[in-house]
Amino acid sequence: MPINRRDAMKGVALGAAAVAANPAAAAPAGGKIVHHVFFWLKNPGSTADRDALIAGVRGLGKVEVVRRLEVGVPASTEQRDVVDSSFHVSEMLVFDNVADQKTYQDHPVHKDFIAKCEHLWGKVVVYDMVTV
Amino acid sequence: MPINRRDAMKGVALGAAAVAANPAAAAPAGGKIVHHVFFWLKNPGSTADRDALIAGVRGLGKVEVVRRLEVGVPASTEQRDVVDSSFHVSEMLVFDNVADQKTYQDHPVHKDFIAKCEHLWGKVVVYDMVTV
Repeated sequence: MPINRRDAMKGVALGAAAVAANPAAAAPAGGKIVHHVFFWLKNPGSTADRDALIAGVRGLGKVEVVRRLEVGVPASTEQRDVVDSSFHVSEMLVFDNVADQKTYQDHPVHKDFIAKCEHLWGKVVVYDMVTV
Repeated sequence: MPINRRDAMKGVALGAAAVAANPAAAAPAGGKIVHHVFFWLKNPGSTADRDALIAGVRGLGKVEVVRRLEVGVPASTEQRDVVDSSFHVSEMLVFDNVADQKTYQDHPVHKDFIAKCEHLWGKVVVYDMVTV
């Protein structure tokens, strides 16, 4: 039986309370999810590897729950102590809610991207924020 | 004398080549800048401190070169090894180009935010990407 939206949102809110490792993370449900991923290449000097990863990331836009997709490389902004410009490729995706992010995570297009591209990166760091 | 846009873009491209510490960072000029900042509170358990920082970040939207501003807290997405959900507040700003990001960096509204809010955070990490 399909659940209604109010019940679904309650589920998200309970989920947030249950899984948040961070005491400051008691976010109101219903915000957008900004999913930011930073990749460090296994072969940092390889433009071919970088471009293959960028092309792979671009393909993630085919997943229907992705509301916005940006792919980039470190910007030539001022080098300050607090700026980490050591990554090689970055992607920023926006989803309407946590459920859509989960749909993306398990989507065949995403799994195919990982299978085809994970040999390219040596390290990956993900930050997920819910907008308030 | 005002420089024309083509010369300005050349300047950005040369700047990118000159300052990039990262060999993979030879980005084409002209992309948007996605400026993502993660804050760790000095008092992680303080909802008042968190809310004061969120309010401060919201005020950054008054800077005229800010094309998009999102502020958030860790999302209740799945906890995986690669996900860093230890931060407390995050902001994501989009600028049209590196020059606009620099204008923002030096803007009185931004400097005022730092002066009023920097006592709230113990650590800050910034990632700047240029979209490709």
